Amino acid sequence: MTKYPHAFLKLIEQLKKLPGVGTKSAERFAFHLLDSTREELEGIGYAISQIHDKIKNCQKCGSMNDTEKCIFCDNPHRDTSQICVVATAKEVFSIEETQEFHGLYHVLGGVLSPLDGKGPHHLSIAQLRHRLSTTEIREMVIALDSTLEGDATSLFLKSEFSSFNLRISRLAFGLPMGSSLDYVDGGTLTRAFLGRQNY
Amino acid sequence: MTKYPHAFLKLIEQLKKLPGVGTKSAERFAFHLLDSTREELEGIGYAISQIHDKIKNCQKCGSMNDTEKCIFCDNPHRDTSQICVVATAKEVFSIEETQEFHGLYHVLGGVLSPLDGKGPHHLSIAQLRHRLSTTEIREMVIALDSTLEGDATSLFLKSEFSSFNLRISRLAFGLPMGSSLDYVDGGTLTRAFLGRQNY
Repeated sequence: MTKYPHAFLKLIEQLKKLPGVGTKSAERFAFHLLDSTREELEGIGYAISQIHDKIKNCQKCGSMNDTEKCIFCDNPHRDTSQICVVATAKEVFSIEETQEFHGLYHVLGGVLSPLDGKGPHHLSIAQLRHRLSTTEIREMVIALDSTLEGDATSLFLKSEFSSFNLRISRLAFGLPMGSSLDYVDGGTLTRAFLGRQNY
Repeated sequence: MTKYPHAFLKLIEQLKKLPGVGTKSAERFAFHLLDSTREELEGIGYAISQIHDKIKNCQKCGSMNDTEKCIFCDNPHRDTSQICVVATAKEVFSIEETQEFHGLYHVLGGVLSPLDGKGPHHLSIAQLRHRLSTTEIREMVIALDSTLEGDATSLFLKSEFSSFNLRISRLAFGLPMGSSLDYVDGGTLTRAFLGRQNY
């Protein structure tokens, strides 16, 4: 059986590292790239290999920026009495899209996951403690996944900062918008019941 | 509404050029790349930007190779009496996987497509004529898509080379393996009927 040229196989291997990309997709990507012009290839190759140099992570909150100045921490229009704790920088932008939150962010850098050997010292919890101790933050909104790890991390944060003069809240659980009760799993329905609101 | 940093948006734009990749997938890819190490990024960036230099296209048949030597044209074990005409180098490897063909290949570089301004002189038809005139090829297997463009290109090849002392064949049309008649479209069923074989 004849195989692709070595360099082509290597490209396919590299593309397969992207999330959700299997051999078939990687092959399609590789053939597409092979048909691209040299300028296009250099454009994409450069965009990928330089991304670390181009993106600055804010030293305070951990979100992504183009410059050393943080669009959240260094923005005088943000509400400095609220802080929203998220696992990764991705969530910051999802929450910004909702236009419901105007406070500051804190990116933990993941969630507690003993199975993967990820403990509290792997997350930016010391930095969060420092921010909570030195600023006038009155509410911490925990915006972590509704998973075992997300729940454990939320509980950890709650107990860690319960002595602070701080409202600690967590995103509501319930039915997703547009969902039918028929198709919602039992866990979600339980949470939706427990969290029912006056109507 | 807050947007991603400029360099990150640029990376997303580049990734969206990959076939079948929309904004959501490109975002996932970009966040995955952002979490990769510098070495990993340089690995993938290099694999992409260097692919043109690393892959040699055979001057004769147009298929992909690691070296100047072609694994088909320069292989003494291939049957030089048969030539299989395909649109792109991708098909060469799909056909090789079947292990049913042991002859030579000819990559046209696409199919006739007047709407895209692609005429016969955009394809390697002159080279094919030269190969058919100067070698002892006795059968040309047309392995083009079963589309309007594929059909038009096949007809063009047939009329172009009908004067040659050559069997011209085209891949069979019919039911795909494992398919149910219920789900097969009318065009396929018609072709399967017309091409029915003694059983």
